[in-house]
Order: sequence, then structure tokens, then C-alpha cells
Amino acid sequence: MKAVIVTVGTELLFGQTVDTNAVYLSQQLQLLGIDVMYRHTVGDNPGRIRRILDLSYEDCDLVITTGGLGPTQDDITKEIVTEALGDALAVHDETEQAIRGFFAKAKRPMTENNLRQAMLPTRADVFANRHGTAPGFALETDGRIAICLPGPPREMKPMFEECAAPYLRARCGGTIHYRMVRTFGIGESALEAAISDLISAQTDPTLATYAKDGECSIRVASKRADEAEARQAVCSMLETLHGRIGEYIFSDDNEELAAVVGKRLIERNISVSCAESCTGGMFAQSLTGTPGISAVFDRGFVTYSNAAKAEELGVSPAVIEEHGAVSRETALAMARGALSASGSRLAISATGIAGPGGGTEEKPVGLVYMACIFDGKEMCESIRARNNGRSWIRSYAVLHMLSMILRAIEDADS
Amino acid sequence: MKAVIVTVGTELLFGQTVDTNAVYLSQQLQLLGIDVMYRHTVGDNPGRIRRILDLSYEDCDLVITTGGLGPTQDDITKEIVTEALGDALAVHDETEQAIRGFFAKAKRPMTENNLRQAMLPTRADVFANRHGTAPGFALETDGRIAICLPGPPREMKPMFEECAAPYLRARCGGTIHYRMVRTFGIGESALEAAISDLISAQTDPTLATYAKDGECSIRVASKRADEAEARQAVCSMLETLHGRIGEYIFSDDNEELAAVVGKRLIERNISVSCAESCTGGMFAQSLTGTPGISAVFDRGFVTYSNAAKAEELGVSPAVIEEHGAVSRETALAMARGALSASGSRLAISATGIAGPGGGTEEKPVGLVYMACIFDGKEMCESIRARNNGRSWIRSYAVLHMLSMILRAIEDADS
Repeated sequence: MKAVIVTVGTELLFGQTVDTNAVYLSQQLQLLGIDVMYRHTVGDNPGRIRRILDLSYEDCDLVITTGGLGPTQDDITKEIVTEALGDALAVHDETEQAIRGFFAKAKRPMTENNLRQAMLPTRADVFANRHGTAPGFALETDGRIAICLPGPPREMKPMFEECAAPYLRARCGGTIHYRMVRTFGIGESALEAAISDLISAQTDPTLATYAKDGECSIRVASKRADEAEARQAVCSMLETLHGRIGEYIFSDDNEELAAVVGKRLIERNISVSCAESCTGGMFAQSLTGTPGISAVFDRGFVTYSNAAKAEELGVSPAVIEEHGAVSRETALAMARGALSASGSRLAISATGIAGPGGGTEEKPVGLVYMACIFDGKEMCESIRARNNGRSWIRSYAVLHMLSMILRAIEDADS
Repeated sequence: MKAVIVTVGTELLFGQTVDTNAVYLSQQLQLLGIDVMYRHTVGDNPGRIRRILDLSYEDCDLVITTGGLGPTQDDITKEIVTEALGDALAVHDETEQAIRGFFAKAKRPMTENNLRQAMLPTRADVFANRHGTAPGFALETDGRIAICLPGPPREMKPMFEECAAPYLRARCGGTIHYRMVRTFGIGESALEAAISDLISAQTDPTLATYAKDGECSIRVASKRADEAEARQAVCSMLETLHGRIGEYIFSDDNEELAAVVGKRLIERNISVSCAESCTGGMFAQSLTGTPGISAVFDRGFVTYSNAAKAEELGVSPAVIEEHGAVSRETALAMARGALSASGSRLAISATGIAGPGGGTEEKPVGLVYMACIFDGKEMCESIRARNNGRSWIRSYAVLHMLSMILRAIEDADS
């Protein structure tokens, strides 16, 4: 099957919105074994959308669009696609009820234009939208398939995975199985060097590495006629990877580090608290993203001022005076303070210089001290994060804090 | 002038490389007042590249390509463009000398295919490549312009700025000025209804609305012969918008709400602290993203457990017993507790149900109470956020907290 991705929206052409949908869909189609021939971005213009559709069906059989399904006047993708594939729009009762229910439940007034979203091609396979009001759909005419998905990534991605992918899987032969292995603590070049022979020798499964925000991932994929065979091939490659670089792997299933740590703490029933300076609540926010974390997360302190460090965590002004707020000693005192305030089994702290100001020769922007105490055992580490900006430094420090917790728990186990 | 951006390269279609060139060129062309009608990505396939060129010149006069100018066999953009515009390739002496010089200087052996890069359209304006070997060029035939640039961003961007931009500036009149207005507290449909007459009547300036993560933005753009005129047109439209929906506007300059609030607090020197339950540190994290915020942000409490609310903030267990942890009374007690612990002028709190578990009929997932106290004046509000998932509810609550702070400061001013 040959595919074309069409992202619709005048705002995309201004370059103010980065088109993450196109990249996501490219990756997903590849995983399904579907070749992408073109990617187009076009404004909310009927003639141009139509011209792109006609061009696409000249030598491709699948067009996936995102955007232009909303309630407003410039949302016209659905109309053009329906026309191009020789169908007509009609009210889709189930969708109309869902939209009315959505607004009733949210106790928000529904405007007439919201109901435009219930108009769908008569022959469509309708994809319900769990995260918004605009449904998506698949429409096939004489071997030409169109799949129309909403523009917002948080609506589009689940709809692709839950509706469009099964629809496509049923239509194309072979099966791809893949796992996304996530690592922290090893750079992309070092990672590639550690597995370069596996990458060079690859036929199936294939290996691809990706670096993102201080983490590296490895995609292990196998395409076979048989699902079980593909799984088995991926599985034995995972074993090889764990033998080589197991200490850096925190997930074989594309989980976020915070989610892995949150789940681990919940499973082991380890109560936890935190004390943050430079990360400013980002650690707490990150860990409390895990559903059910309230069973173990007790409290967090964001102690920005020195007074706050003293009053909330009992950090002695003398320690700050002597070693500075950004020091091993302050980090340890903060973690100890969080522990004694909360009575939890594990406490973690961070104090550093996130920039852009505040750096010195001796203590540059990017320097962060972190302490972790678990069942009385203390560890303290420092990093010098690359100065890729305030937000990057803070995120990287949080990843490091999470990895310290993982290691503290593993050390206690062994 | 109407433009099309074509990024060439099979690797782009796999979705492993994010196509930053397309976004960069969109922005640059907009700054030149050139409208981008399409963005295409196509593999290294002669037939498909040609089809895209032909489609482009149907209703546009400028095509900018990136990629496919290198020395290898699959670098074919130059050939196809030259053919499409009715020219032929010939050796460009200056370029040949430059390539020979490049390899001599780098003391690297030059292969014959490197000299392919010295073959250029006979009528081209050649753009020298200061960062690599492949030159770019502009070629015009009967009002159809093609500009071909190399693929690597570090070669492409300087070549665009130094060669392509001056080439284009000489050929097009007019200039675009635009502002991005950000709002919170009004849905996209309601926003459009409030300004639908302005949208319908638009010729210049044009208005476009975008919804994202609980916020709505309006882009106001004017294209005029004269820069000052365009600015003036945008400016008076901004006044109209402020007259209509001013209470929802927090920025005329595409700033994040957290950044606007952070800057306001710093300017006014208003010390601030926070107490968070369901938002789990996300408010603190969001506010402390602002550089320099340490001048006013004192401390934050993430009080997840009831014990933490009592011990850190002095929330009376009787209040929680009687009204529940998610209640107006608890939210107010949390803000009061943060205030008295920190001695800051402003305190803000949030307590709610972020889900997925924990909701009841009476207190459903998405219900959040928030209190803000500023110079002794207390306000308390509740929202029922759409259940778009834990992360969305938390983010939405944080935006609402930020908007409460803005309103508290404005109320105090008036």
C-alpha cells in the first residue's frame, strides 16, 4: 500500500506551529509496513486540498489527512474528501448524540456549528473521538482509501492507534512487531558505538536509535508473515541489548522514566517526598503525573529562597553560608529535611543553577547537586548539564533525580 | 508572490528526521511577505518531484526546494528543476574551482561525483555554499522562479539569508506585519461567535483563530506596501479585539500565560507562594520557568496527603473532615497556610480531582477548587475541567490559577 500524508491548516504554513502530526504518521505508517510517498501541507483552501487529493490518487491508494474537521467555517477537509471519493454527507445519528451528550455533560452551551461535526460521509467507517468532539473516519471508493483525522495531536494520536491502525492492519499483509527501548545516562554516540555491530548486521529485526531531551531510545522492529515469529525475533534482540547496555535501560515498552519510577514506588509501597530548588516543582509535577501516586507521594517542598530552605527543611544558614545554596551539603540537608518533615522512606532533593543568570566560573549554569536518601542510605550526585536553556537543564535534572531513585531501590534490592 | 516549499529526501518520509527546513522557510517567507500555499515532502524520485513542480506552477510563481543537490546518484533535484524550467546544465567554472579548492584545503581526495555539483543551469543565479560543497541557485523562466538550496540546515540557512532572501526582496513588493493575541477563559466556538462579523468581513487585516490546550489564539495579520501602514492596520484591529473580548486577552505578543504572570509579579515586586494538591507541583514548575522569578517566588508546597496539608499549611483536620479535601474551604485554608508560612503578599492554592480515579457523582474528575489571596483580599473559584485526561486537567487548572493571579492584581489596581 502506498500512502500520502496531508496535513491541513493555514496556520501550519506560517511556520508557527510545528507539524508533529506528519512526523508521527510517517513513523506509524512505517511500522505498519506502509510506504509513504509524499507528505503535503496545505491551507484551508478547497481547490488546493482537492488538487492534492487528485495528485495523490494518481499513484497512491491511501491518503491520510489531519485537521479541518472542527466546527468552524474554515474546517473543510471532510467536505472535499467526501466529494473526491464520490460520497455525500449526512447526519450521523450516533455522533450527533455523542456531541449533544458531550456538551450536556460539560454543562457548556452547544452552538449550531458544533453539530456540523455530526455530518459524515454515508459510507464511512466512523472513528469516535474520545478526546474531543470531531469524529474521524475512513472512506473507501474503488480501492482509494481516505482516512481523515482531527488536527490536535492529543485527539489524533489515540484515534490513529485505536481506530485507523486496526483498519489499516486488516487491509495490508504481513505484520510488524516492535518495541521501543528507552535509556538514560548514555549519549547517542556511545550507545551507537556499543551496538554498532548489531546495527550494521541488521536485516530483521531492525534497530534504530533516537536521541531526545537527554534520553536515547532504540526501536527494535521485525516484519514477518507471522505475528508470533515477529515477537520472538524482537524478544531475542531485546535480550542481546540488555546484555550489552542493560544498566541504562529503564523501559522496554516506551514508558516515560517518571511513569516507571512512579509505578515502582507504588508497587513497593515506598513513601516518598521531595525538596526542590532549581527544578522549581518540576520533579513533583513529573512524579505526580502517575495515576495512583497519592498512595505513596506524601509531600514536596519548593524552597526557592534561603529562608524557605531554613524554615521548611531546617537547612542551617551556616551550611548555606559556608558551602553555598548550590552545593553537595545543601542538597543533602534539603533531602534530610524533607525526610524528617514527612516521615517518608525516600526523599530526593535538587539544588542548582538553571540559568540564564546566576552562573559563575566555579559554579556554571547547568551545575545541579542532587541527594537521595532511602531507608537511611544517603547518596549525593552532581551533574553539569549542557547549557541548552533553562527548561532543558531543569528537565535533565529531573530525569537524573528519577534515575537516582531507580538506582537507590535497585541497590537496596541487591 | 505565491510560494511552494518542497523538501526532497526519502529519509524525511520515514519520520525519523524532523523537517526543520520546512518550518524555517515558512517563517522566513512570511517575513518577506510571501504567502506559502503548499509545503511538500517528496522522496528522491524523478517522476514525483516533477509532478510536484508542475502542480506548484499551476497557481504559484515561486518554488523553493531543499535537498537533493549533493554529489550522489540520488541527488536529482537540480536536474528535474532545470528540465521543468526549460534550461540545461553546464559546467560552472567558478563553482568547479571552488570545489577543487575546498578539497585541496581540506586535504581530502576529491571523487569525480563531487564535480557533478559544478554542473548548474546555464541561466542560473548561482549561490555559493560557504559551509559545504553543493552550491544553490535561483532560476527564472517566464515568471516562474525556482530556488534550490542544499538540505543540511547549517548550509541551507546561511544561504537563504545571504543569497535567496536578497534575491526575493528585489522581486516582491509589500510587507507583512502580524501579532498573535492569546486568550484564556473563552472557548474557540464562543470566541469565533464573538468576532464572527470581523472574520467574515476580513480582507486586510486577516483574522484566524487557533485552539490549543484550553487556550485560544487569534492571529491578526496585515499585508501592505508599506511597513508602517501594515503595523497601523494590525494595531487598530487589536484595539477592536480588546473592546470585544479584552477580559480574556492576556498577551498581544504570543507570550505564554505563565511568562506574562511571572513578568507581572517581578515588575510589581509581588512576593508569591503556592500550595498545591492535585496540580502536584505543576503550578510552581510553570511559574518558575520564568528567568529571574527567584526575586519574588519564595516557596511552594505540594501537599498531597491530608497530614501534609495539616502539618505544612495548618489546614485543620476538622475542615477536611467536614468539607472534604476537595472543597472551597480546604482551598482557602491551603492558601492561608502558604501565606502565613511564607509571609508573601500573594498566595495561590489548588485542590481537586485530576483522575483517572477518585471521582464521585458529586465531585467528578475535573473538579478543582482554587483560592488566591493578595494583600489580604481572598478569592476562591472552582472549575469543572473536561475529562481529557489527568495531564490535561492539571494543565488547565494551572492556567486557571495563573489567570486568577492576573485578575487579582488587576482588581487591586482598579
